[in-house]
Order: sequence, then structure tokens, then C-alpha cells
Amino acid sequence: MSVAVNFSVEMPRLAVSMLERVRKQTPRVHCLMNTVAQKLVADGLSALGAIPSMTSSSDEVQDFARKADALVVNLGTLDKQRREAIGLAVDIATARGIPWLLDPAHCDYSLLRARFAQDLLKRQPAVLRANAAEYALLTVPEHLVAVETGVVDRISFAGRTVSVANGDPLIAKVTGTGCLSGAVIAAFLAVDDDPHMATAAAMLALGVAAEKAALRASGPGSFEPALLDALAALEGGEILERAKVT
Amino acid sequence: MSVAVNFSVEMPRLAVSMLERVRKQTPRVHCLMNTVAQKLVADGLSALGAIPSMTSSSDEVQDFARKADALVVNLGTLDKQRREAIGLAVDIATARGIPWLLDPAHCDYSLLRARFAQDLLKRQPAVLRANAAEYALLTVPEHLVAVETGVVDRISFAGRTVSVANGDPLIAKVTGTGCLSGAVIAAFLAVDDDPHMATAAAMLALGVAAEKAALRASGPGSFEPALLDALAALEGGEILERAKVT
Amino acid sequence: MSVAVNFSVEMPRLAVSMLERVRKQTPRVHCLMNTVAQKLVADGLSALGAIPSMTSSSDEVQDFARKADALVVNLGTLDKQRREAIGLAVDIATARGIPWLLDPAHCDYSLLRARFAQDLLKRQPAVLRANAAEYALLTVPEHLVAVETGVVDRISFAGRTVSVANGDPLIAKVTGTGCLSGAVIAAFLAVDDDPHMATAAAMLALGVAAEKAALRASGPGSFEPALLDALAALEGGEILERAKVT
Repeated sequence: MSVAVNFSVEMPRLAVSMLERVRKQTPRVHCLMNTVAQKLVADGLSALGAIPSMTSSSDEVQDFARKADALVVNLGTLDKQRREAIGLAVDIATARGIPWLLDPAHCDYSLLRARFAQDLLKRQPAVLRANAAEYALLTVPEHLVAVETGVVDRISFAGRTVSVANGDPLIAKVTGTGCLSGAVIAAFLAVDDDPHMATAAAMLALGVAAEKAALRASGPGSFEPALLDALAALEGGEILERAKVT
Repeated sequence: MSVAVNFSVEMPRLAVSMLERVRKQTPRVHCLMNTVAQKLVADGLSALGAIPSMTSSSDEVQDFARKADALVVNLGTLDKQRREAIGLAVDIATARGIPWLLDPAHCDYSLLRARFAQDLLKRQPAVLRANAAEYALLTVPEHLVAVETGVVDRISFAGRTVSVANGDPLIAKVTGTGCLSGAVIAAFLAVDDDPHMATAAAMLALGVAAEKAALRASGPGSFEPALLDALAALEGGEILERAKVT
Repeated sequence: MSVAVNFSVEMPRLAVSMLERVRKQTPRVHCLMNTVAQKLVADGLSALGAIPSMTSSSDEVQDFARKADALVVNLGTLDKQRREAIGLAVDIATARGIPWLLDPAHCDYSLLRARFAQDLLKRQPAVLRANAAEYALLTVPEHLVAVETGVVDRISFAGRTVSVANGDPLIAKVTGTGCLSGAVIAAFLAVDDDPHMATAAAMLALGVAAEKAALRASGPGSFEPALLDALAALEGGEILERAKVT
């Protein structure tokens, strides 16, 4: 429970602790990930210290989900095979009690995808990560952490909201960074029992890494490798110094 | 009509104006794009100021095509599902009157792909983008803009040809830059009614960005992020200064 | 035959000669490659001087395999369609007598994949590239070159083992570099009749490129473009100076 936490002071400390645990425990994060962002998400998880996998065929996904410590279900580049694989992977996650995150990417473009996202929400993901346009289409159940990404990220659970104002506008110019944030959250979920705090900590860590990357970048192209470098080199002290959490 | 245009003087000015319109109007470009180049093409479109999407399943592609301002049909990594999705997306583009571009990537490797490309040419794309080996296999109908890429890009329509000699040899060493040029053309088609000038303007803008990127690059690896940075930072004055258009 | 070779002296010279031949002959390497690593592998092959292709649908893969000088079969992101395409591509490679390499990526995660890898080993690949966990699951036939990647890469054939100690720890933090090593090996197989020496030469060339890249990199993100730059710029003298071969 996070009831007694003073967010602006305690959250950054929790984030530092969780980042250390990710690096020490190297959780396996299996990603049902759109084909566009697979490489960036895998590289981002590796840079952070986690172990990614990306297989999304229905005849193998269960074996991968059985080895995973957390699951990311991203609905980008969805098709029939991927929907089937997602169902099977969520079955395993539920049976094994590992946390999973839903990112209904671009469900505002496709009615079929919005319906599939709504069905998945009934299956109790630990976290829903979406933007305002996607939230507008979904009925969000209680008992999950809802992340609304934007200039300020808002992470809500049971009526309480943590706001993280870290980050840099360049992150929105690089395809797949939103998908990566879902995977970073999953890695933090794998090492902590409080999904609300783990989610906020992940968004904070990624936001601080983005700020460091922006210092070195000359545009969106050079920002991407700089972000991976920053994730790999991220230090606890930088999180404490830069955190803008309320 | 572009009949009265003095290409070498007017084309660069048109390109500057269209680039400004792309950044202001942020057209949505839906890409039926091979899986290899999806990320680079999405990042390139974002850097330019357009909004990319990449879904290529037959049960969702129509919804994405309905929201698009232009369509790119790239035949790389083609399979049955992708062929079906392409047919559906072109139906929507035709019904809605939005421009679309055909890139018959590697159709010189596969007879099936060359035949599919030939069938698609009957469906009136605004632009065909191909290399010499691909053109050799295709019967190109009138009433479309034909781009032949090479050291000098030749953009032909109704018996008139614009040649753009901008660019850098490094661009050919990075997988997906040809695919990206098709997407940049589509973004320009979305903001201008003259497909011949829009196509030439897009090739000019990308060529100038490539020259800027080459100044910073140490090889093909560093060229790619530099190209994205250059697209994002491209200024009208640079286009006017560097243009080699005849 | 490599019987009379003094590995530590002759191997680097052979590697230099083969690298020159790759650049001169520009072999076509067709890759049945997982969707995550396709772009990096294609860029790596281009940087090296080879010509990549990536199509993996069952109705086109044969045409691509017919044009190829070597084949890479990587089992990442495997599905039914990809298994079928792999079978067809190996048929062509066998019929045409071109070398092919098997990379049973992550077969330790999936029993189905391990079985499929075992079946493929009966079809006489020239090279098997795997890590220790993957080798533990496979019965490796004689008459193939077995590469075990790790801090030191061991390349074995007919009871003799070449060890290559070049490389940098950053390479393991970038997704797809293992897959790329398989493709680099295939490019070397295409220009030399001795698969044992060609495989060791490829691992040496890539290892030296990784060392050069690490000198410029600030982390895994900047390492990747630096690796591609280093592959494109790799000089024979650097291979001879840096080689750690026994």
C-alpha cells in the first residue's frame, strides 16, 4: 500500500531502489510488441538491465510467457495471429500470477482494436498505459493502475494520482518510445509488489533518462541512441536531483 | 499544371513551400511497409512533421486508410496477408480520392511480386517509385508520376522530366532509405495538388537532408540518425542554396 | 582443408583476404531473419559490402533463395509461415549447393523450436551458431562448423577449435548483434570454400569492428551506429594488429 507515502520525497527514492533491483534481478519481460517498435523496446529493456523476448506466434508464445517475470501486451500492428497469441499469453500470465501491462496503441484508429482492448481490460492487467484519445474510448475498470502519458504523465490508482513532469519533447518524435515506456513499467512491476509505485518509478526513470539524452542530442535521430545510453548509465543521484513528482 | 515552370528556379521554392505545409498540416501517411524499414520510415515521417501509421492486417487496414491523407504501398517482405491488406487499402484510397504511391521494392527478385506490381499499376497510383531494374520489368501507364531513383533521381510526368542531383552515396548503404523516400513523397502529395512537383520537391528535400547528414556522419551507421536530425532541422534556405534541379 | 594452418598467424591474414573478397564480390545473403533484427542485419551486411534480402513468405522465398550466394536461417520470432518458408529456402540452398547457416535463436525457450532446429540440423547446414544454453539442447552432427558464441567465440570443425577472443561486452547489450554475426559468417562462406576458416574469419572481423566501435561509444545506444561505421571502414591492418586468435 502506498497510502502513507509523501510522493515528491519518497517516490524518487523508491525509483532508485527499484532500478537497482531491475539491474540485479534482470527480470525477463516478454513483449507482444508491434513490429515497428520491437528493436527499440528490446534495446531499451537490455539497456535498463532487463531481458527482453518478442516472439508472438500462437504456437510458441506460451513457452515464452512461462519463462517471463512480466508481460507487455501492445496492440500496435495487430492481426488475427497476434490477437490469438495475446489471449494465450494472458492465460499464462494469469495462471502464473505475473503482472502484465496493456498498451492499446492507436485503438482510436480502429473499432476492432478498441473492442479487443476493452475485452482485455476485463482480464485484469496490472497497468493500462494509454493517451487521452485512447482513454476516451475505453471504460477503465477499478483495481488497475492507469497511466495517461503526455507532457506530464499521470499515474492513477484507487483515487490517488502521481504526476511525473520529467521527460523531453524529443521523446514524442521517436517512434516506439511510448511502447518502450510500457516495457520499462513491466520491468519495474517484476521487481516490486506495489504496481502504483512501480509504474510511477518507471515513468520517472525513463523521464530522467530522456532529459539526459536531450542534452546530447541534435534532433530525434541522435536522441534515440542517446536515450539508450542514458538508460544504461542512469544513476540514482540523477533521479533524486531531477525528479519532478507530485 | 507545371507547364510554365522553370524547374531549376521554381522547383526549390515550391519545395520550401511544401515542406512548410507538411510541418503545418502534419498529414497522416499510412504505410503498407515492409517489416525491415517500418521503424526508419516512421521516424523519418515524424522528423519531417508528418504522422505515420504502419498497420497492415486486412481486418484493420481500412480503418487506418480512412484516417490517412496519403498512402504508401511498398512491396518489400510481401506475403498473402499483406497483398490482401494492400488491395483493401487501395480501395479506400480510391474511394476517398487520396493520393497513393507504389514502391515495387525488389520486384526484380520475384515474378509473383512483379505481377502484383503490374496489377497495382492499373489501379492508378499517383506515383511509381522504382529503380532501373524494377522499371525494366514493368509496363508503366501514362498519367502517373514515375520516379527513377539513382545517383540522379529522375521524376517524369506527361513527357517532362525533372532531375534532382542532390543526395549522398551513404544513403544507399542504409537499408530503408529508398522506402523512406516513398513515404516522404506521400507526405508531400498530401499537401499539394500537383503530384509531379510534389514528388520532385520531396526528392529534393530528402536529398538536401542527406547532404547535411553526410557532413556529420562517419559511415552508414552514424549517417542514419544524422539523416533524421537533418530532416527535422531542414531549413528553406538550405534547400534553395543546395538545390541541383534541372 | 585447414590442417596445416597455424591459426594465430594465418587466420588473421585469411580474414583480411576474405573481407576484401566480400567487398569485391558483394555476395547476396538471403536472411530468414526474426523481425526484431532484420534492419540491423541488413545494415550490417550492407556496411560489410554484401547485399541483404529478408523476404520470408513461402510464396516468394524460393525466388529470393535462387538469387542468393548464401542463406541465414535464424529461428527468432518463429511462426508457422516462417517454418514453411525456411523449409522451402533450405530446399533451394541444397539443390543449388550454396552454404547456409543455422541460428536456433532462443530455442532454449521453446520445445517446438528446439525440435525444429534439430530437424534442420539433419539438412546439413554449413554452420551452426548458438550459445551454450542452445547447444545443451541440440545433438550436433559431424561435418558442420559449430560456433559457440560467448566472451571467447569457439569455432569447431572435425575436432579442431579456433578461439577468437576479440569483441567488446557492449555487443551483448545490443539486440540482434548475435543474429548479425550469423549473417556476417554467411557473407564470408559465400566467398571462400573452407567453411571453418570462413566462419572464424567472420567472427574475427566482427570482433575487431566491435572493439573499434567501443572506442567511440558512450553506451549500447551509440555503440550500434559505431559498429556499422566500423564494419564499413574496417581495414586489413586493424585485423592483423588486433587479432586474438588461438
